[in-house]
Amino acid sequence: MTRKIIIDTDPGQDDAVAILLALASPEEIEVLGITAVAGNVPLALTAKNARIVCELAGKPDVKVFAGCEGPIGRRLVTAEHVHGATGLNGPKLPDPVMELQPQHGVDFIIETLRAEAPGTVTLCPLGPLTNIAMAFRMAPDIVEKVQEVVLMGGAYFEVGNITPAAEFNIYVDPQAAEIVFKSGVPITVMSLDVTHKALVTKKRNDAFRALGTKVGVAVAEMTDFFERFDKEKYGSEGAPLHDPCVTAYLIRPDLFTGRHINVEIETRSELTMGMTVADWWGVSGRDPNAMFMGTIDADGFFELLTERLARL
Amino acid sequence: MTRKIIIDTDPGQDDAVAILLALASPEEIEVLGITAVAGNVPLALTAKNARIVCELAGKPDVKVFAGCEGPIGRRLVTAEHVHGATGLNGPKLPDPVMELQPQHGVDFIIETLRAEAPGTVTLCPLGPLTNIAMAFRMAPDIVEKVQEVVLMGGAYFEVGNITPAAEFNIYVDPQAAEIVFKSGVPITVMSLDVTHKALVTKKRNDAFRALGTKVGVAVAEMTDFFERFDKEKYGSEGAPLHDPCVTAYLIRPDLFTGRHINVEIETRSELTMGMTVADWWGVSGRDPNAMFMGTIDADGFFELLTERLARL
Amino acid sequence: MTRKIIIDTDPGQDDAVAILLALASPEEIEVLGITAVAGNVPLALTAKNARIVCELAGKPDVKVFAGCEGPIGRRLVTAEHVHGATGLNGPKLPDPVMELQPQHGVDFIIETLRAEAPGTVTLCPLGPLTNIAMAFRMAPDIVEKVQEVVLMGGAYFEVGNITPAAEFNIYVDPQAAEIVFKSGVPITVMSLDVTHKALVTKKRNDAFRALGTKVGVAVAEMTDFFERFDKEKYGSEGAPLHDPCVTAYLIRPDLFTGRHINVEIETRSELTMGMTVADWWGVSGRDPNAMFMGTIDADGFFELLTERLARL
Amino acid sequence: MTRKIIIDTDPGQDDAVAILLALASPEEIEVLGITAVAGNVPLALTAKNARIVCELAGKPDVKVFAGCEGPIGRRLVTAEHVHGATGLNGPKLPDPVMELQPQHGVDFIIETLRAEAPGTVTLCPLGPLTNIAMAFRMAPDIVEKVQEVVLMGGAYFEVGNITPAAEFNIYVDPQAAEIVFKSGVPITVMSLDVTHKALVTKKRNDAFRALGTKVGVAVAEMTDFFERFDKEKYGSEGAPLHDPCVTAYLIRPDLFTGRHINVEIETRSELTMGMTVADWWGVSGRDPNAMFMGTIDADGFFELLTERLARL
Repeated sequence: MTRKIIIDTDPGQDDAVAILLALASPEEIEVLGITAVAGNVPLALTAKNARIVCELAGKPDVKVFAGCEGPIGRRLVTAEHVHGATGLNGPKLPDPVMELQPQHGVDFIIETLRAEAPGTVTLCPLGPLTNIAMAFRMAPDIVEKVQEVVLMGGAYFEVGNITPAAEFNIYVDPQAAEIVFKSGVPITVMSLDVTHKALVTKKRNDAFRALGTKVGVAVAEMTDFFERFDKEKYGSEGAPLHDPCVTAYLIRPDLFTGRHINVEIETRSELTMGMTVADWWGVSGRDPNAMFMGTIDADGFFELLTERLARL
Repeated sequence: MTRKIIIDTDPGQDDAVAILLALASPEEIEVLGITAVAGNVPLALTAKNARIVCELAGKPDVKVFAGCEGPIGRRLVTAEHVHGATGLNGPKLPDPVMELQPQHGVDFIIETLRAEAPGTVTLCPLGPLTNIAMAFRMAPDIVEKVQEVVLMGGAYFEVGNITPAAEFNIYVDPQAAEIVFKSGVPITVMSLDVTHKALVTKKRNDAFRALGTKVGVAVAEMTDFFERFDKEKYGSEGAPLHDPCVTAYLIRPDLFTGRHINVEIETRSELTMGMTVADWWGVSGRDPNAMFMGTIDADGFFELLTERLARL
Repeated sequence: MTRKIIIDTDPGQDDAVAILLALASPEEIEVLGITAVAGNVPLALTAKNARIVCELAGKPDVKVFAGCEGPIGRRLVTAEHVHGATGLNGPKLPDPVMELQPQHGVDFIIETLRAEAPGTVTLCPLGPLTNIAMAFRMAPDIVEKVQEVVLMGGAYFEVGNITPAAEFNIYVDPQAAEIVFKSGVPITVMSLDVTHKALVTKKRNDAFRALGTKVGVAVAEMTDFFERFDKEKYGSEGAPLHDPCVTAYLIRPDLFTGRHINVEIETRSELTMGMTVADWWGVSGRDPNAMFMGTIDADGFFELLTERLARL
Repeated sequence: MTRKIIIDTDPGQDDAVAILLALASPEEIEVLGITAVAGNVPLALTAKNARIVCELAGKPDVKVFAGCEGPIGRRLVTAEHVHGATGLNGPKLPDPVMELQPQHGVDFIIETLRAEAPGTVTLCPLGPLTNIAMAFRMAPDIVEKVQEVVLMGGAYFEVGNITPAAEFNIYVDPQAAEIVFKSGVPITVMSLDVTHKALVTKKRNDAFRALGTKVGVAVAEMTDFFERFDKEKYGSEGAPLHDPCVTAYLIRPDLFTGRHINVEIETRSELTMGMTVADWWGVSGRDPNAMFMGTIDADGFFELLTERLARL
């Protein structure tokens, strides 16, 4: 059975791979639409990059919408130092021919969910949660239509990457994250604790390149670019492929393990702003609201990725 | 020259009078639409009450939209202890015949502003600023279309009414207020410092009733009901007519004086949550962002009200 | 019956007048000691100024102690823009001959209270509450020895003087203020709401000068200097004599009226840091912990001052 | 060369072992005094337990002082669920015969540091930092006398034990921790990241017991009791010996590695209150203020412990 999903994204090389994986897996995943959000780079670029990726996948009929230009209550922080000036630095990819949909991404999310049965649509946010939170606040009736929110964001043992306490996606829009985490929907969190275990080693990247396809080479070039940052910062052996964990989970949930725990978002203090306070040890007495993933079968994950990307 | 306005409101007896005043003043005010928001009572009631008031004014062709069901980042707090269970307790008014517009209030605000020239539409929020803030965040391009936000909310010397530090409208959605006050639009604030000087004394209420019209009697009965609260709490001689200060200002700005100062919204601390920190004495060094009103010619205000209500 | 008091102070011209009033009133007030604290000016100056004032009063046998050099948890903020570089600018007064006591002010407070019967010593803080709070935390057993804390600090309707939300004394050490306000001791607050009604008009200052004594002339010269600030800032007709309200209250409590209400101190948000959130209208449901003064018989107050200063 | 130290402590079984290690190592460590603080259990018990431990070590001449009864700005939180009702549950140890010193612990710290040369005294806080912070605020001149503060507290990758974000010692008095971390003294932090690697396995505990001495058996019985908590909570193979890392570091600093980084204390938000925000990856741009330890040679540590405890 396929899962209907909306991908909310700020590509970003790893977003691109996550989208490619979804588009390569029509048996498991039906992409109802892609909504762009400001995050890794500004909205104009993420809305363009999402279309570049759809065309790279040979799927120019996917509907792509532009959503919010910045977080709900803060100035936009971007990450060109990680992703490059365009957000998709690495491969040379042509400008998209397909058009952006005229509807606002938030309105698309609302309209789409309203048209579906309760508990049947999965939201896959790969960037700041602005669009999702705005939709939930404008139209609280859609919350019950959500089957699951599977998101990349947060950290517990790996703590922060943008500040000592916070992961980038949540940090950019902590208020949006708080809205989603308090909404009552089932949430699955692909945190840095997981994604820092999904490293693109040389061997894994060679496997992408060895596909010999346009997609395979582009993914290899993206991760070549992307890995500079983590190699220098963490001394790790390759780039963590954060966002594809989300779409991989929809296909192979067995690759991941975690705990169903309480996760609260820090929104009050600048020092710890955007921290995902995950009650891993169960000391808070607060009710669980999220499946917080902690491990990944990295070999299985990269095998899946390589196998599916080969189909495009 | 008439000013084009959108009234964003959570009626509320005093909201009702503010709307009536606007609808009675077509030479000065063109009401593009009315958007309801949750505040004094839940959204279902405020969306209904707005239409009751339009019909009471004999203007069933005014477009009324439902906006957000609750504040951006907090649980909804309502004020039935002030306004009664329906929000319009006092007079007996028939259920509205006119329909609610199908469009979301936030989308209406965005679409309407986009269709107008820069600096030409005045927003008149009489309740929590949720709808306005959501529109500004979804579509930042509309901000330049705003001529002025004239709002009822906040307090400085009169400090709070819902908490010791905060006025109700701002307290209900401090994050929305912060978004609006930081947006860069010209803002005029009708705070409790002004509205607590606009008291419906017996003589003033008698003047409404003496109009002998349906509107005059309804307004008299609304303020009869509404004044219980303030008489008991503050020992004042009558109800403060908060919201009509907003629409009166559009007709007779000379009735009000204030200072152009910096106003920040407290969003971090629960103790002072929603306080309008108004730099009346200029000690902060922060740039002015709002005309914060402090005085009103109360006699002139009530003469204007009575004269205009007579026209309906 | 005389009240035993410890004056905790950061002179400051108005502190000086408060001390003079106490020392001029031995029938009502027994000064067990004076502890200096950093506030209006740094500790070295306040410890010196306290002794200058004792000698001006002809009481070189009063014990003066140096307390804390700065607030518990923040950087020291001072107010030379109000009080001048020495804190006592205005009259020319000789350097003190009397020595500072070797004991730390905090230890003196603890030792003194321990030696007295429960509920018998009144603490009179005229500056930041650092010394009092430190003593309460080091030796919680002394709290029950306190009869009353009568302090100058805070504001409600008059809101702030150092920031838009905070009065200077509380702002300088909000954590100390929180400790004192939560300690359970009876507290009487002379806020800006009171002290801004105790203005040294020209006539009142002439009365000081007309005493023809060293003290009378010095007080007149102090207020001459001190009033510059408020005249320029608030356009008031003279300097508010903040601190003498504290010692006047010990002699003539009937000069003041207020409400017994809950007062909480803002310590979390920088925007409203140090605000005395006074529940004047009883909306919070929190238990009263302080007598918050709101009015003063200003004529009676200045008559008392003039009469008593004449005795020195 | 011996290091002069003051141990500030809230015993606690692991505090006890830390003290025993110090008292067993006179070649390296001269204990100037022990100050008790409220933490694991209330002050009356920690002041008693410190003396029990001195007598167990055969050192009844060590000076023990009682310090503060609770944290600077919060209610005391204790940890009887970890340490048992007395704080030293496990072995049966006689009540102490030696007397508590009459001087307040904070005054002892101040007086002692003032008598020593700059940079010559090491402070070893094993509990909440209340006493140290109070001393620093009462007498800022002593800060330069400190050679180093070597403390047990905080966490980064291991995040929290008392809340999801905070370690117990820092959580109990975050304001005190902030004062110490901002004081400018050299700080070495034995965080949970280190201490959770110093586990008392069965074999290690058997080695204590096999000493056959009163001390060896008592330490074995203490850790028997203490380990219940961590075994149940973390599923670890034994109790982490938190506090002895502090005194072991004074003898064998080579057993530990870490990074000299910026560490800030969260004091504003209840959700993350007391978190040690450690900039392990250098993303904040803030200046380093602490040596934050991350690894321990656990075998070397337990060998040292066993060898030294054998001397008592």
